[in-house]
Amino acid sequence: MGASGPAAPAEAVMKRIYLDHIAATPVHPAVREAMAPFLAGTFGNPRSFHAEGRDALAALEEARGKVAALIGAEDAEIYFTSNGTEANNFAIKGLALGRQAQGTHIVVSAVEHPSVLNPVKALGKMGFTSTIVPVDGAGRIDPGEVAKALTPRTTLVSIMTANSEVGTIEPAAEIAALCRERGVLFHTDAVAAAGNIPIDVKALGADALSLSGDQFYGPKGAAALFVRRGTRILPLLDGGVQEGGRRGGTENVAGAVGLGRAAELARQEMPGRTARVAALRDRLLEELPARVERVLVTGSREARLPHHASFCIEFVEGEAMMLSLDMQGIAASSGSACASKSLKASHVLLAMGLDHATAQGSLVFSLIDDTTREDIDHLLDVFPPIIDRLRRMSPLFTQYLKEKGR
Amino acid sequence: MGASGPAAPAEAVMKRIYLDHIAATPVHPAVREAMAPFLAGTFGNPRSFHAEGRDALAALEEARGKVAALIGAEDAEIYFTSNGTEANNFAIKGLALGRQAQGTHIVVSAVEHPSVLNPVKALGKMGFTSTIVPVDGAGRIDPGEVAKALTPRTTLVSIMTANSEVGTIEPAAEIAALCRERGVLFHTDAVAAAGNIPIDVKALGADALSLSGDQFYGPKGAAALFVRRGTRILPLLDGGVQEGGRRGGTENVAGAVGLGRAAELARQEMPGRTARVAALRDRLLEELPARVERVLVTGSREARLPHHASFCIEFVEGEAMMLSLDMQGIAASSGSACASKSLKASHVLLAMGLDHATAQGSLVFSLIDDTTREDIDHLLDVFPPIIDRLRRMSPLFTQYLKEKGR
Repeated sequence: MGASGPAAPAEAVMKRIYLDHIAATPVHPAVREAMAPFLAGTFGNPRSFHAEGRDALAALEEARGKVAALIGAEDAEIYFTSNGTEANNFAIKGLALGRQAQGTHIVVSAVEHPSVLNPVKALGKMGFTSTIVPVDGAGRIDPGEVAKALTPRTTLVSIMTANSEVGTIEPAAEIAALCRERGVLFHTDAVAAAGNIPIDVKALGADALSLSGDQFYGPKGAAALFVRRGTRILPLLDGGVQEGGRRGGTENVAGAVGLGRAAELARQEMPGRTARVAALRDRLLEELPARVERVLVTGSREARLPHHASFCIEFVEGEAMMLSLDMQGIAASSGSACASKSLKASHVLLAMGLDHATAQGSLVFSLIDDTTREDIDHLLDVFPPIIDRLRRMSPLFTQYLKEKGR
Repeated sequence: MGASGPAAPAEAVMKRIYLDHIAATPVHPAVREAMAPFLAGTFGNPRSFHAEGRDALAALEEARGKVAALIGAEDAEIYFTSNGTEANNFAIKGLALGRQAQGTHIVVSAVEHPSVLNPVKALGKMGFTSTIVPVDGAGRIDPGEVAKALTPRTTLVSIMTANSEVGTIEPAAEIAALCRERGVLFHTDAVAAAGNIPIDVKALGADALSLSGDQFYGPKGAAALFVRRGTRILPLLDGGVQEGGRRGGTENVAGAVGLGRAAELARQEMPGRTARVAALRDRLLEELPARVERVLVTGSREARLPHHASFCIEFVEGEAMMLSLDMQGIAASSGSACASKSLKASHVLLAMGLDHATAQGSLVFSLIDDTTREDIDHLLDVFPPIIDRLRRMSPLFTQYLKEKGR
């Protein structure tokens, strides 16, 4: 990892262990290979009426088909976007504004990503109201709470498929079903889930679904919104004829092709990938709390992303742990990279009922395809002394030890 | 061009002559090379607190500096976007909504790109009004007309730097100056201009400026909006902490790096590039009307993009010409690729006073760095017989010949 510089003596090179899937996955070599021609000879604009344009359009449409296949959608239901945030903004603003005449009430959960919560806030300035449904201690949304939140003015519900900070898979299909009964549109932010767990939009019953390639070995800058055929949605990017007039702007052809290839690989390889990383995840979820005292597993144990192990380590701050781990060659995260500059405790953990102090000790290890049993064993070896050292600097921990008579 | 297949006999391969710069430029080999590490080992999320994240952030910020340098901006004034359309939407909606309390009137020209006109239309549904200023026969906007359009409720003027369909460079600096005097924000869509003609945002006096890498040998999917420091703008993509909280979503690091490298190259190579293509452009502008009767040069002869030659060929349709040229190995366009699916006459040409029939014969040859004198000579040779053949199918042309007594 990192651009290759002059060769260093082998013993000086520390092997990096990358456990921050939720921030971004590496790009699969086959994805990179698929993209290469579109950064070289095949550079046409897909909307041009000549050979260069037609080649680009063919590639774009083939990629669209592969993304559609990953989630059981029709090709024409896939709109390329530049990232998950754009997909979520497009969905929330586009669906809500498209139905403004029928109502202006939106329902979301307390653990949604900022790219869902903030568009809802922005709509608030345009006269929309919203209800934020709570979650339980595992970050799980109760469909009954969603049902209670619906009003005759509700036009849109947006509940994520899975949470990237605590790994919990939400009961999206149940919520979709009750929305459908009431004639309310259902969007799901599947950015953390798509490509990592099986998703079928028909079985799920979603009207709109966001996904992003950088969560399943595709490139950054390539994501998509599924919008069920016949669903009215206003553009977020008003412009030209691209994407059926629903998303203007010259398409990132190389990115879309990479996303398509990543979707194809995910579909083919998901069962194998899942089984392997889930076993390593389980080892982490079991062993970390066994080796370090006062470690809490966050999120659901049963309904959980296969690559996701998250904890709160008491008496330690997430950022300090990340930096210490980084110096030992291990890349982890303390939650959403999208909120990383703000040192506030995670809104997800607070919604789950954790107190501020505990929530500060948030730590997420999210596994990638390359993660090995040796990587996890190494992490389990280096982790306890890191925490020991950090805790020795904590007055609260000293007090805790004193109270325990140690 | 096109993905390389099995080697064909040399005599069967037709050399392609790509003259559709305005739809998309090829990606410069040095740009591709700069991007490569970010589609491989350096895959981190720039907002992550570990080595992988820091490497990505450093590259992103270096790229931002290079984009800033191209237009004389400060680094912090550059916001990466996914294309020119997003930059224009961000500018128009973000600036207008950010100043809604002061006024709700917007001024644009009749020849703006759909990604400026359509956001203004969308704002119309939110209570904004707009005035569309006319252009002269060369597509030039009279600053006096803009001054006349300003009202006490005007908060934003958006006038393009140069028009991609007719090549005319607009008097943006004059318009910026009169906006500044009146305390009105000035945005300019410089997508067709930036990287192709010198632009300095300080000399220009713009408050916001859109540019796109695919117009100067960068990758698709990588563009930027300049927003003058201290200018209030609301996000289009509401989300996380990225881009100073003004544009959420994981950044397309490889794309931004490519855009940065392309900006650096444009800055270094612009004088040489310009002189070369402008000479070839002039040859086309002179020779094409000399070799084919009833050919009109569209746009300004004096204030013109160096790579841009545009015409209306009477008695022929643009699409038919493009397809005929394509079969002869020449890629051209009949206007904006963003409008290519709609076979309506160009709103730009109609605004310049051309009638529908003439406007249908729009044809743009936009030169790239690789364009040679031989390419232009070849085009000038094959063009007259193509037009002859197409015109023979036109009843209007037959009638014209009869009237002329031929």
